[in-house]
Amino acid sequence: MPSPRTASPKLQEAMDDVSNAVNRTIERLLPETDLPEDLLYDAMRHGTLGGGKRLRPFLAIQSAFLFNVNSVRARRVAAAIEFVHCYSLIHDDLPAMDNALLRRGKPTVHKQYSDATAILAGDALLTLAFEILGDRETHADPNVRCSLIRSLAEAAGGRGMVGGQMLDLIGEKEEFDLGTISRLQRMKTGVLIAFACESGAILGRANDVHRRALRNFAFDLGLAFQVTDDILDVEADPQDTGKDTQKDTEAGKATFVSAMGKEAARSRAKMLVAQATRHLNVFEGRADMLKEMAEYVLARRA
Amino acid sequence: MPSPRTASPKLQEAMDDVSNAVNRTIERLLPETDLPEDLLYDAMRHGTLGGGKRLRPFLAIQSAFLFNVNSVRARRVAAAIEFVHCYSLIHDDLPAMDNALLRRGKPTVHKQYSDATAILAGDALLTLAFEILGDRETHADPNVRCSLIRSLAEAAGGRGMVGGQMLDLIGEKEEFDLGTISRLQRMKTGVLIAFACESGAILGRANDVHRRALRNFAFDLGLAFQVTDDILDVEADPQDTGKDTQKDTEAGKATFVSAMGKEAARSRAKMLVAQATRHLNVFEGRADMLKEMAEYVLARRA
Repeated sequence: MPSPRTASPKLQEAMDDVSNAVNRTIERLLPETDLPEDLLYDAMRHGTLGGGKRLRPFLAIQSAFLFNVNSVRARRVAAAIEFVHCYSLIHDDLPAMDNALLRRGKPTVHKQYSDATAILAGDALLTLAFEILGDRETHADPNVRCSLIRSLAEAAGGRGMVGGQMLDLIGEKEEFDLGTISRLQRMKTGVLIAFACESGAILGRANDVHRRALRNFAFDLGLAFQVTDDILDVEADPQDTGKDTQKDTEAGKATFVSAMGKEAARSRAKMLVAQATRHLNVFEGRADMLKEMAEYVLARRA
Repeated sequence: MPSPRTASPKLQEAMDDVSNAVNRTIERLLPETDLPEDLLYDAMRHGTLGGGKRLRPFLAIQSAFLFNVNSVRARRVAAAIEFVHCYSLIHDDLPAMDNALLRRGKPTVHKQYSDATAILAGDALLTLAFEILGDRETHADPNVRCSLIRSLAEAAGGRGMVGGQMLDLIGEKEEFDLGTISRLQRMKTGVLIAFACESGAILGRANDVHRRALRNFAFDLGLAFQVTDDILDVEADPQDTGKDTQKDTEAGKATFVSAMGKEAARSRAKMLVAQATRHLNVFEGRADMLKEMAEYVLARRA
């Protein structure tokens, strides 16, 4: 299959639909008020609205679609996952971490507000994600809600995303082998992407075969995504990505590109996407949007 | 009732029991490993073990005791609440916030490790709290687990503890009236203490009368606790408190002491504790440990 540099009209439409729906859901979940602490909510809105590929919401909503999940429920889960993703970016961008000034073409939250506000905005977003998942509106069955909560917490916590960020920091000073880099990236990015894909199956109480297919798809996709990110970090234009590039190289971070070279990394990403889409064959054509998204992840310029 | 300067032997024994039980639970929840990211778990252990009054675990375990809740379940909830409390201290101590160097007589997490590690350790503890509450071991009934999760998220989030911290920051630059200071303190400290008291009732599926009694007790106690904290900040010895004192005054923060004077603050705290313990009369003597704890909160030197 040829890799499209831009999304096909159909994929673009599906992506736009997700973006609009998730933005509306986020706006409802973070309403403006006159309360004196509303500065916190301004910062939370700044860090979550306006821009972003919304890859995780797309995956959550498309996977929920496979099991005919009610769209309000799917959007709430999509927003919760995006909150976790955005909180991690807000904390990651802090001077104590990556010290990034630009994100999605806008000043980062700590640049726009303050370091303290950015720390608190991240904390509040993470907490809100669990509040959303625990709420009856997300699913009538409390077993489903608890399953979502446990899976998100495992994906986002010390043995998942946050653990991956810790490894990332350690990697600035230590040389990692390819196995450790793969584990780092799976923890840092892969597991949350995997949860996004699986969340639709949890919401739809899918059978094990379907759930496993989505999980396998997600792991290969997550890794392909990160390899592509590493390639983009060395070759993309900040005008395209809307964030600072070459940050990893400057920080001396262990990346797939530094470990295996750009060309090998590129063919690895290609192989991973091919492998990822094969897992979706059990859905017999109903998962074409997910397949197209995987191809797009590989080809994207930003 | 005379206010004891030190805990009675019976209260002291109950407090020690809670401390030991919660420490063992925390150690089990944060096991040491050989994984390369274990530095994160070291920091999480540093920020949660060794010291602390364990007020919130005490309240959770004692309130669970009123409804004959299984002790393993009560301890898991107590540990989850303590994780949330400790994460908030770790983030609050960061240079971008209070810039505190000493906590519970030890270097703060960012001093001992690094700012980045402290941010991540806090994030991981917050996430772990929800993972614990979502797990079957905390309660067999998923409705109970979801209720715990929603209540904790509300207490800890942007309309609760984190919102209170935001107000606290704003209060460094703006003059608040007593109403806003009360709201700030209720959000920053009161609601999590209230959740600790209520968690036992949720675990024990208590009736509304009992639940309300605990909630009312908790709100008065939480406020009394904060007023006492403000008094201690201006008069205590750091050797007693194990943390930097006079921080609020230096930061020009709005406190009860700055708003109403030390003496008025002291009698306000006394009145709140008397009011708090009266709510517990519905338990007819079974809540004496909670009453004694309230008196102790008022009289403590640290």
